[in-house]
Amino acid sequence: MPGADDLADALAVLTGFGVVRPEFRRFPDGESYLRIEAGLADAAAVVVARLDAPDEKIPALLFAADLARDLGAGRVGLVCPYLPYMRQDKRFQPGEALTSATFARWLSQHFDWLATVDPHLHRYASLEEIYALESEVVASAPAIARWIFAHVDAPVVIGPDAESEQWVRAVAEPHGLDWRVMTKRRFGDRAVEVSGDGLDELEGRTPVLIDDIASSGATLAEAATVLKDAGLDRVVCVVVHGLFGEGARQRLAAAGIKRIACTDSVTVPEARIELAPLLAPAVARLAIKDKPESSTSDKPVP
Amino acid sequence: MPGADDLADALAVLTGFGVVRPEFRRFPDGESYLRIEAGLADAAAVVVARLDAPDEKIPALLFAADLARDLGAGRVGLVCPYLPYMRQDKRFQPGEALTSATFARWLSQHFDWLATVDPHLHRYASLEEIYALESEVVASAPAIARWIFAHVDAPVVIGPDAESEQWVRAVAEPHGLDWRVMTKRRFGDRAVEVSGDGLDELEGRTPVLIDDIASSGATLAEAATVLKDAGLDRVVCVVVHGLFGEGARQRLAAAGIKRIACTDSVTVPEARIELAPLLAPAVARLAIKDKPESSTSDKPVP
Repeated sequence: MPGADDLADALAVLTGFGVVRPEFRRFPDGESYLRIEAGLADAAAVVVARLDAPDEKIPALLFAADLARDLGAGRVGLVCPYLPYMRQDKRFQPGEALTSATFARWLSQHFDWLATVDPHLHRYASLEEIYALESEVVASAPAIARWIFAHVDAPVVIGPDAESEQWVRAVAEPHGLDWRVMTKRRFGDRAVEVSGDGLDELEGRTPVLIDDIASSGATLAEAATVLKDAGLDRVVCVVVHGLFGEGARQRLAAAGIKRIACTDSVTVPEARIELAPLLAPAVARLAIKDKPESSTSDKPVP
Repeated sequence: MPGADDLADALAVLTGFGVVRPEFRRFPDGESYLRIEAGLADAAAVVVARLDAPDEKIPALLFAADLARDLGAGRVGLVCPYLPYMRQDKRFQPGEALTSATFARWLSQHFDWLATVDPHLHRYASLEEIYALESEVVASAPAIARWIFAHVDAPVVIGPDAESEQWVRAVAEPHGLDWRVMTKRRFGDRAVEVSGDGLDELEGRTPVLIDDIASSGATLAEAATVLKDAGLDRVVCVVVHGLFGEGARQRLAAAGIKRIACTDSVTVPEARIELAPLLAPAVARLAIKDKPESSTSDKPVP
């Protein structure tokens, strides 16, 4: 899909699949036009998409799945390194739309399988709770650890709150990195207090804040401020999915975070950690499960 | 849905149904948030939406249908005076996505019924060919004819091409208006020639060009130029769905069209013809078919 050409190309090289670049445009009235010139008879089609800011991309994504099947593809899969709509995983107030479940149903009805990276599994234990398709979850931790070893002196990996512990441990433990998790107390919709024990032992170390998603950036900014107050001021921040909503970068900069890195699950200047090598084996396994002939198909999305 | 509050209110007044205004917002990451505070147990829910420039509105629209059902609504319908994705009604080139059929399936899976105004039925004879839900098609012709009688002196209704004949006859014949249809010859992707016989008989009359959709405005602009060359220069233009894509208004102005009117199926300054009175009886019939208790529910879309 548009915006994921580089990822489709990288996956094609790594898996040996062919690449099909669909034609995508918008009509003057805003409707999507989609065309795939290649025949896909009995091929295993792999739709590759980056799904941050997902709403306007969703129609073309689902059109692409339908079209691949119309053109004869036997098995149609989706590679989306960032899986959206995972955060509304319960009705926090009565009457809220459970968008995670509805979105999961759409993907499950249109695709046979899904490969993604570190989905936001919080209240759901696994994708199977809401997704009715084969899925494979790839962990970005090895790539993040490699980036830290290559770019940070004397690192100590730090999670800003309890929710982040799973990501912190995955990055730190298998790779022998030292780690801490701070505690966050919430006093209302916007008031949070982050605190950390034993930060004073870390003098001379470089704190690397880790989280799965940076959206508003508020939690990471809070944590960086606490670290600074403890005398740790060369804070590095690494997130899996760098969504960086409005104001997020300013918030992080104001908190004194000088270096930010994230994976290329979304296209942002901070995307320094490549996911294709981690995704390729999963794609190879899932794509060819039923059918021997395969082609990576990169289909357009706004 | 957002952008259709006025239409939902008007339908509620005309049908006697209640109005529920859902809460809609976007998270910093661009995802939709939707909440309906009212209980909808056993209610007949009617989602009211304007679906021009549809892609970014589609997810919230389908979330709303799901949510209404989650909240207990027995029957969930959709009122969308402009039905999008009707124009890709065949594969004009091999490999094109048949978006009309896929979009029809989405609406059919999420809604029990659909009320719309003058859908672009060209290669499909009726909505039933692709829509698997109850539907009612409302004709805007009576409202358009009334507008012409009220605002145009000595009108003669003119269609720019053969495709427009169905709209022209519907407006003209039952209301005793004089009408003509011009002929369009296409010489390629962009080159069209419009011609009209007997235009010289119309001296002193006001030509009213009629079509169902104005998107690029090219066909209407061509027709207006031919009318001007025949000495008919006070051209009025009335369309059902005034989508007016980029450059359309400039194109129509350059062709000397001074007055443009369309229905309020979309929200544009030219929307002078109200559809609620025509839609209300259809909504009343469809909403209460199975369930006695009803509530018009206006649910948000970007």
